[in-house]
Amino acid sequence: MSQFDHVSVVKQANVYFDGKCVSHTLLLADGTRKTLGVILPSTLTFTTQAPEVMEGVGGVCRVRLQGESQWQAYGAGESFAVPADSSFEIACDEAYHYVCHFG
Amino acid sequence: MSQFDHVSVVKQANVYFDGKCVSHTLLLADGTRKTLGVILPSTLTFTTQAPEVMEGVGGVCRVRLQGESQWQAYGAGESFAVPADSSFEIACDEAYHYVCHFG
Repeated sequence: MSQFDHVSVVKQANVYFDGKCVSHTLLLADGTRKTLGVILPSTLTFTTQAPEVMEGVGGVCRVRLQGESQWQAYGAGESFAVPADSSFEIACDEAYHYVCHFG
Repeated sequence: MSQFDHVSVVKQANVYFDGKCVSHTLLLADGTRKTLGVILPSTLTFTTQAPEVMEGVGGVCRVRLQGESQWQAYGAGESFAVPADSSFEIACDEAYHYVCHFG
């Protein structure tokens, strides 16, 4: 699926790391909140509060979860899970488009 | 209204000017297409094909339409119209959040 249907979209974007990460918040009919975003070429460290699943929808990235030594590559159609109260480093050489699922 | 309801959202973002402008495409129930985006601090020149109305939803910008000598400031809740096959310069000192209406 290349698009979400029947959703609400918050007009104001979420801008992180001086704009290296920009997302818009989606509210689904069942009350679920997701963010739809893009990470521009950079290496960033994100922290989580709730558990997250990051689903790639375009581009590629390399990810190292907190406590791991290996980086792992993820592309479109692939996902990685991050526990609550944790962090991950993400390295992108090109724009990486994602959906972030919470909880 | 701080959000769009009952819309479709294209998952892949539109990334322009090395990420200084990032938007997501919205498809409304009536078939209308809009883009919801943010311009990061920069001065950019956009060209239009269809006429556009840029509606600010957060932050401020200064705009100079093609052929004009004056810059004009626009903030949240304010809009400016750009004719088809034209251009405008936009200068943002902070993130400027917008909805672009076409046609």
